[in-house]
Amino acid sequence: MTQVGHNSNKPRAGGVAVDQLKSIIARVEKLEEEKKGIADDIKDVFAEARGNGWDVKAIRQILKIRKMDQSEREEAENILDTYMSALGMLPLFEEDGE
Amino acid sequence: MTQVGHNSNKPRAGGVAVDQLKSIIARVEKLEEEKKGIADDIKDVFAEARGNGWDVKAIRQILKIRKMDQSEREEAENILDTYMSALGMLPLFEEDGE
Amino acid sequence: MTQVGHNSNKPRAGGVAVDQLKSIIARVEKLEEEKKGIADDIKDVFAEARGNGWDVKAIRQILKIRKMDQSEREEAENILDTYMSALGMLPLFEEDGE
Amino acid sequence: MTQVGHNSNKPRAGGVAVDQLKSIIARVEKLEEEKKGIADDIKDVFAEARGNGWDVKAIRQILKIRKMDQSEREEAENILDTYMSALGMLPLFEEDGE
Repeated sequence: MTQVGHNSNKPRAGGVAVDQLKSIIARVEKLEEEKKGIADDIKDVFAEARGNGWDVKAIRQILKIRKMDQSEREEAENILDTYMSALGMLPLFEEDGE
Repeated sequence: MTQVGHNSNKPRAGGVAVDQLKSIIARVEKLEEEKKGIADDIKDVFAEARGNGWDVKAIRQILKIRKMDQSEREEAENILDTYMSALGMLPLFEEDGE
Repeated sequence: MTQVGHNSNKPRAGGVAVDQLKSIIARVEKLEEEKKGIADDIKDVFAEARGNGWDVKAIRQILKIRKMDQSEREEAENILDTYMSALGMLPLFEEDGE
Repeated sequence: MTQVGHNSNKPRAGGVAVDQLKSIIARVEKLEEEKKGIADDIKDVFAEARGNGWDVKAIRQILKIRKMDQSEREEAENILDTYMSALGMLPLFEEDGE
């Protein structure tokens, strides 16, 4: 196993710079806690929206669409419509005079 | 730890009915191999489709839509259209004279 | 959108070779059904094992270990032990006379 | 579709309280951006650790172990050792005089 942090004169155990290892773990755990806090905040926003009668699934779909590149999205929609029309699945949308 | 398969007179190690454990592992590994084989077959079908010029993303979308309940799907589409129209995101679809 | 299957004289809709599209979808759906059947079989094996008193989590861990390369696994275990010993987390295992 | 935010006198489109919808979307997008920033920070910590010669896989394993309940972890380890010993997989660990 590669000797880790070998050049440091810090306390070592089994060739491991313990302080450095502890600092890495502490930093990641702190960041993960912050991240979890924000994830919980997002859940709260959706719960509040649901409580106000909003359809959260549709809102998530819109958030996803807003991340997509407009022209890519339009091409994808056109291809999907063409395939669905070919398969007779299109009554859901106005058939475009096929 | 719960004594496992205690009533059997089969070979045991540390209170464990070894044959039974081996059989469970062998059965799962065989099934997982079969499952992987089918997953590879699905990948082949998509690769072939892509090679023939099909848009695989659209085909996956259609496979997903075909699994959905028709009326649920239509209601979800209506809600999404309503929200997108309210947000002015609807140029993609015919604005319904709002 | 790329004309799909343009050279075929098969029925077409919106430039799409409908039969080919239907065949792709049918083949994928059949394979996905088979795959789901096998996934259910795997669940049954674990349910049966649990019913016989086995610890399914440990069995899954063993299945994972059996997929790993032996020497890689041993090196990973050694590194983990070294770090855990450095962090004083090792009481779980015999401390190796640090 | 349930009339959303019907009692508000705020601007509406297709029965939708547009301001409220916009606020929900803005809040979620802001939070998701913050969350992504922290996820990138975590990646940076691991990249720095890797650069200093640390085994990131082992560190992730330790972070996972530190989240587990100590007694649960010890019982899980004992069961795993018992099964692995029964399967003759234990040379990796000291065989306990079976």
